[in-house]
Order: sequence, then C-alpha cells, then structure tokens
Amino acid sequence: MINSSICTIGDEILIGQIVDTNSSHIAQALNGIGVRVTRMVSFGDDRQTIISSLERELKENRIVIVTGGLGPTKDDITKPALAELSGSRATRTDARQLEIIHRLLKAKGLDVLDINAAQAAVPDTCEVIPNRLGTAPVMVFRFPAERFGHECTLYSLPGVPFEALGAIPDIINDIKEHYPADDISHKTIMTYGLAESQLAKLIEPWENSLPENIHLAYLPNPLTGVRLRLSVYGGDKTAEDKIIGEQTESLRKILGDCIYAEEDTNLQETVGRLLLKSGKTLSCAESCTGGMISHLITSVGGSSRYYLGSVTSYANSVKENILGVPAGIIEKYGAVSSECVAKMAEGVRRITGSDYSVATSGIAGPGGGTPEKPVGLVWIGICTPDRTETFSIVYKNDRKRNIERFSASALDFLRRAIEKDINNL
Amino acid sequence: MINSSICTIGDEILIGQIVDTNSSHIAQALNGIGVRVTRMVSFGDDRQTIISSLERELKENRIVIVTGGLGPTKDDITKPALAELSGSRATRTDARQLEIIHRLLKAKGLDVLDINAAQAAVPDTCEVIPNRLGTAPVMVFRFPAERFGHECTLYSLPGVPFEALGAIPDIINDIKEHYPADDISHKTIMTYGLAESQLAKLIEPWENSLPENIHLAYLPNPLTGVRLRLSVYGGDKTAEDKIIGEQTESLRKILGDCIYAEEDTNLQETVGRLLLKSGKTLSCAESCTGGMISHLITSVGGSSRYYLGSVTSYANSVKENILGVPAGIIEKYGAVSSECVAKMAEGVRRITGSDYSVATSGIAGPGGGTPEKPVGLVWIGICTPDRTETFSIVYKNDRKRNIERFSASALDFLRRAIEKDINNL
Repeated sequence: MINSSICTIGDEILIGQIVDTNSSHIAQALNGIGVRVTRMVSFGDDRQTIISSLERELKENRIVIVTGGLGPTKDDITKPALAELSGSRATRTDARQLEIIHRLLKAKGLDVLDINAAQAAVPDTCEVIPNRLGTAPVMVFRFPAERFGHECTLYSLPGVPFEALGAIPDIINDIKEHYPADDISHKTIMTYGLAESQLAKLIEPWENSLPENIHLAYLPNPLTGVRLRLSVYGGDKTAEDKIIGEQTESLRKILGDCIYAEEDTNLQETVGRLLLKSGKTLSCAESCTGGMISHLITSVGGSSRYYLGSVTSYANSVKENILGVPAGIIEKYGAVSSECVAKMAEGVRRITGSDYSVATSGIAGPGGGTPEKPVGLVWIGICTPDRTETFSIVYKNDRKRNIERFSASALDFLRRAIEKDINNL
Repeated sequence: MINSSICTIGDEILIGQIVDTNSSHIAQALNGIGVRVTRMVSFGDDRQTIISSLERELKENRIVIVTGGLGPTKDDITKPALAELSGSRATRTDARQLEIIHRLLKAKGLDVLDINAAQAAVPDTCEVIPNRLGTAPVMVFRFPAERFGHECTLYSLPGVPFEALGAIPDIINDIKEHYPADDISHKTIMTYGLAESQLAKLIEPWENSLPENIHLAYLPNPLTGVRLRLSVYGGDKTAEDKIIGEQTESLRKILGDCIYAEEDTNLQETVGRLLLKSGKTLSCAESCTGGMISHLITSVGGSSRYYLGSVTSYANSVKENILGVPAGIIEKYGAVSSECVAKMAEGVRRITGSDYSVATSGIAGPGGGTPEKPVGLVWIGICTPDRTETFSIVYKNDRKRNIERFSASALDFLRRAIEKDINNL
C-alpha cells in the first residue's frame, strides 16, 4: 500500500481553539482508494517549522496532504514556506483561480483587493487545481526521487473545512491517476436505530465469516446513525462488486429495516426521496428540537417540492395558540408527553394541510429534568394520512448532542412510517 | 516557554473513524499555564512506530502527553511500548488503581478478570496518577537530561474522552509543580459584517503597529463571523492584560459595532444575552433559512427564557394562512421581497406576542434564481417594539453555506437592532 501523511497548519489548532476535522475526512477518502495514512500531524504558523516538518513527512511518505495557512492575511505563511521547500524562485498567477476570485468577490459586491488577487499567485514549482469554493487554490508539488529518496507529491489545501472537503474529490482523482492502486470496491450501508456496540454484537457472526479481502468499517454519527462501509480489495472490479452484493444481501437479512439506504446518504434525504415517490407533503412541530428537524429537511435541495413548513413551539402559549394543543392536555400530562406531541403533530398537519407531520417535545438539558421525566427524554409524534403514533426514547448526552439525537430519531420514525405506507399500497 | 507535544495513538484515528477531540482540550489546558504546544501527532497501534515517534517528540519537547492505546484488548500496545522506551525490566501493581478497578467493575455487576486486573500493573519506571473514572491509570515517565538531551516528562493518559479529560487537572498540577512557567494572556474579539480580507485591510495599520510580543490570528467562520485572537507572551500577567486592554480599545475605535463581543462566543448567545438584559422576547419567521435560525437560538441553554418560537413558512400557503401575509403582497412583489419579509416578521410577532421578531426570505439555491433575484439573495426583516426594518444581501455560495450566511446575517441585524434599543434607553 502507498503511505501518506496528513498535516494541518495553524496556531489555532495548537492552542485548542479549533478541533481539526479536515484530517478525518481526508483520511476516510484516502482509505477509500487504498492509500494508508501513517500519521496526522498539526504544527504552527512558523516558516521554519513548516519546512522541516514537511521535509520529514515527505521522506517517509509518498503522499503528503496539507491543510491550512492559505488565507489572505499575513499570519498565513504556508505558501512562502512551500515556495522555499520546493526551490521556487518566482511566482505565477493562475488565470483560472484569479477568475474565480473575481467572480466570488463580485457576487458579494466586494472589490478585488491586492491581497485577494495575490491568492491566485502560486510558486512556479507547483501545478494548480482551481478551488471553486474559495479564493485559495489547491497547489500540487511533485518531487522527483532524488529529492526525498522516492517520488512523492504534496497537496496543499485551504483550511476552511467546506473548501477543504470540496477539494477532496479532485485530490483523490489526481492520486488515482498518478499512483495506480489495486482495484477496490466500496459499498456504504446506512443504518439507524442500533448503537454501534449493539450493531457490532448483532452482526458479529456475519462479520467473522467475511472473506479475508473484505474490510468492514463502522462510522457512527449522531445525525445519520451508524454507516457501515464495506471495502473489497485484491480482485477485479466485477468479482468484487459481486461479493459486495452477496454480503449486503446477508446483512439485510440480519438488520432488516434498520437499514435505510444502500448508498452514502442521510435520513433527511431518504425521507425526501420517499415523499417524492409517494407524492405526499410534510410539516413539523418542534419543541425541544427547536427548528433542527426543519433545518435538516430544508438542507436538501428541492425540499420545497414536499415540505410545507413548521412551527417551533418553544413556549406553551405557541403550542396552544398556533398549534391548537388544548391547555388541559398540557396541564394534565405536561408538555413532554405522548398526549401533547400527538396534538402538536395533528395541529401542524391541520394548519399546514400536509399529508404527514412529525412533532417533538422533550428535555434537551442541561437543566429541567425530573425523576419521571429526566433530561434526555423525548416524545416523538408522527401523523400519517390515516393514523397518529407516538414514541419515547431517553438519551444521555449534552444539550447539543441530545438535540441531534432527538431530531435524527424523529426523522427515522417518520421514515419508517412512510415506508410502511408505501409497502402497504 | 516550555515546549510540549500531544500524541494520540490509535488506528481508528488514521482511518478517519474517530475525530480526536482530546488533543484540543489538552492544548487549551497547557496554553492556560503558559506551556506552548509545538505539535500534535496521531499514529497507529504499532510498537515500533510508537517508540520511534515518542523518542522524536521527547527529543524536541520537555513535555509529551500521550492519549490512547491503554485498553484491555490485545490491539492496545502503548504500555509495552512505553516499558521498552523507558528501559523497564519489571512491572509493579499499583494498589490504588487496583482498588478502583474492583470498585468500577463491581458497580457494573461484573467480575474482575485477569485482563482487568492487569491494567493496574505498570512498568517499574513510571509514577502513577490513579484514574478514578476508568480502569487504566495515568503513567508518568520522567527522563533525565542524558537520555534525550534535556530533562523531560511523558504523561500517558487513557484515550476514552471523558477519562482523558478527567485526568487533565492532575496532569496540569504535576506540570506546574515540575516546570515553573511564563505567563501568557489571550483575548478573543468577535466581529461580524466584514469579510476576512476587508477586515485585514481595515486594521492593517493597527496590526503593523502591534508590539512584537503580541500575536494576532484571524479565525473566520460563516456562523460566527471573523474571530480575532490576540495572544501576549513574555511579560507578567498584569502587564500583558494591560497591553491587551489598550489594543482592544484601539481596535474598537476602528471596527465600532462590527465587534459584537470581547470573549469567545457567537451571535445566538449574544442575542440571548441582550434579550435577557432588556427583558424582551423573540420569535422568528423563516423561509429560505428553513429553521436554522430557530435551531441556532435554541442551541443556547436557557433560551426558553426569551425565545417563544417560530414559523418556518416554506410554502406560500403557510406564509398566508399562518403568518397572515396578504396574498396580494406575494403576487405583487414575490415571496423574496422587502414587503414580504416585513409582513412575515410582523405576522410572527403578532401571533406569538413577542417583543422582537426576525424573518427571512431568499433563494438558497442551487436552482430558482432569476437575473433580478439571483441565487444567494436574501431579504431579512426585523420587527422591534416600535419599528420594522428590512435588509437585503447577496451571497454566492452553495446551498448549505448560503443558509448559514443568511441565518448568521439575520442574527447580526437582530443583534444590532436590540443593541440600538438598549443604547437609546
């Protein structure tokens, strides 16, 4: 396997102000094409440190991916350091990136300042992959064998996460082109409803019987559930795809409807796909999730084709006056109750005229729990064209994570309800 | 300053399955006592890699903090590697940790297996700081100057985040006892409304005149704006704090109300703080932002004290039927218009009874734009107790980023409106 190293440059990482999440995404992508990550290193915005650290990584790895330190301001010194490292004596301006800079700033109604235009200037020792999402281009430095003892390549990416993530496909294509790897096939299977340890125990016999050239990775995420990634190495593509198809079939027999997709997706896209398929519409009523479910649903492009809207009823007065939850229900059962979420779901479905609706009421924390209704308890209500269902779960996380779990679980119950209706047609 | 390195051991980091958050917390704690973190490194569960990587870090740093690889299973080999590195020829059992192991497992109703008890056995070359939260103790290896060229210390912590975090105070106390440190002061200044490059140009003369021992970093984020971080080294705490106070004052003269806080915070917390200060309440009406503003506001603990709720009016029928936007307004001006967001803001304020309200209507993309109303256009409406204001901006990002920018800008206009009212009192 080809060895690689992922480097992050920035004082803000070293003082703990920012958690580096880019490296993890890059590592997933590299592993996906059979490139081994041997090390991840973060170091500061200091020219000599950058040069000596990168020299070390290039001696020991064929591929080095660097993020960060490419901003327009003067604390960002990755570019001059790379110029020195690669022996560049002049810069050239990349016309494609310059055009992108003009377009991005013009769209924001901003003038192109010298420091902006300077971002398109790169050392004459590198190739450029234009960055359509931001002003700093991706720079590719290819070093001959005599420099570090083996041919190696350094990719320099912006540190801003959405720009770094946006650049990954181009980097991966370039690596595939220059470093012929074995055939490798992947399949992603999305599951929801089982914790990673439960899932691992349930599929242990299946996992133990997997052929040696299949690798299984668990990628848990509070918003998507556990993503299983099957990778098959060392055969030809057709044989590998066949093995993956068979193993997915076996897995489906074990996990049933905990599997919600056989591609890399999420619950909100899956719900959208199901609604489009059945030609139905959706609305939400959110209390403890505070708008996050609606945010997730509308993060999908084209969601206006099936999504009508929502009411975030944070105050009880909003539950009563806008959603029409009877005051007596809240008095008798409390806002966090099966009865209340049922009325919330029915209320928002009535006032928006949607086919389906989903409602949440719970206690995200940190304060507010009681022994009967602890922090982490959520009630979820689902209205379909012919029934209302409610569910409750208790999570034990902090506020942020509880809100994520509540929202994802609500989307999963909704997904199951719509799937059931489609299957019963 | 004393230099340190933070190392993370575990294959799960290198395949991108887990994001390392321990290092960030440890870095914050080290910076807080004036210990500089020069590098963070992650490497795999391989004995020779562990030894050679740690030797390298110890040569270059007085303090090395290692997390991970201390579990009971056989793929965790940090302990034997540390035994070899430190020249240990025997293990000893730490009685305090053994007692903790018995107590923790008993509490879970589990028997103490040999592999559990073995966790209290440590190389005879280390000191132990008992870990009250888990079974693996913290090990402290002190190396004399002749070994790596300077006296240095290696701390080995468990990788489980809550155990690693739990061990930090003990480690910090040990470091303070053994390494008398310099003072260091930080200040974070939050700005919104200027792009990083605009901001840099505006404050360039100020930045150029900063004393040599002050370091400035720009940390842009679509949801919080550009965070400026000032760090002062090399004086005593009182003098450093005085310099920071003076420089912040100069900066405020340049940036004015683009500065929304002088601590590490965000717009939603700032809006919450202002509402609590003035005893007022808030509601939202969201179209293009789809619930994200409401999600951000309710991500703040205690937001129910000032936040009543929201309506996400994705469909025009919801704008009309729930928010009471006259159909004629939408027909005449379109949903993405000053007139429509004004009515949306007024409508949600009326039906919830809040003091303030904020409304958005725009085109997040990817499709849906026209030459007059391009993708990236957002109208923002703000209602205060005595006026309605509307604003428009055009962003040019992808859907996800546009929604974030729209939401943050809406919160910033709201922040300015509430500040204005407070200042006019």
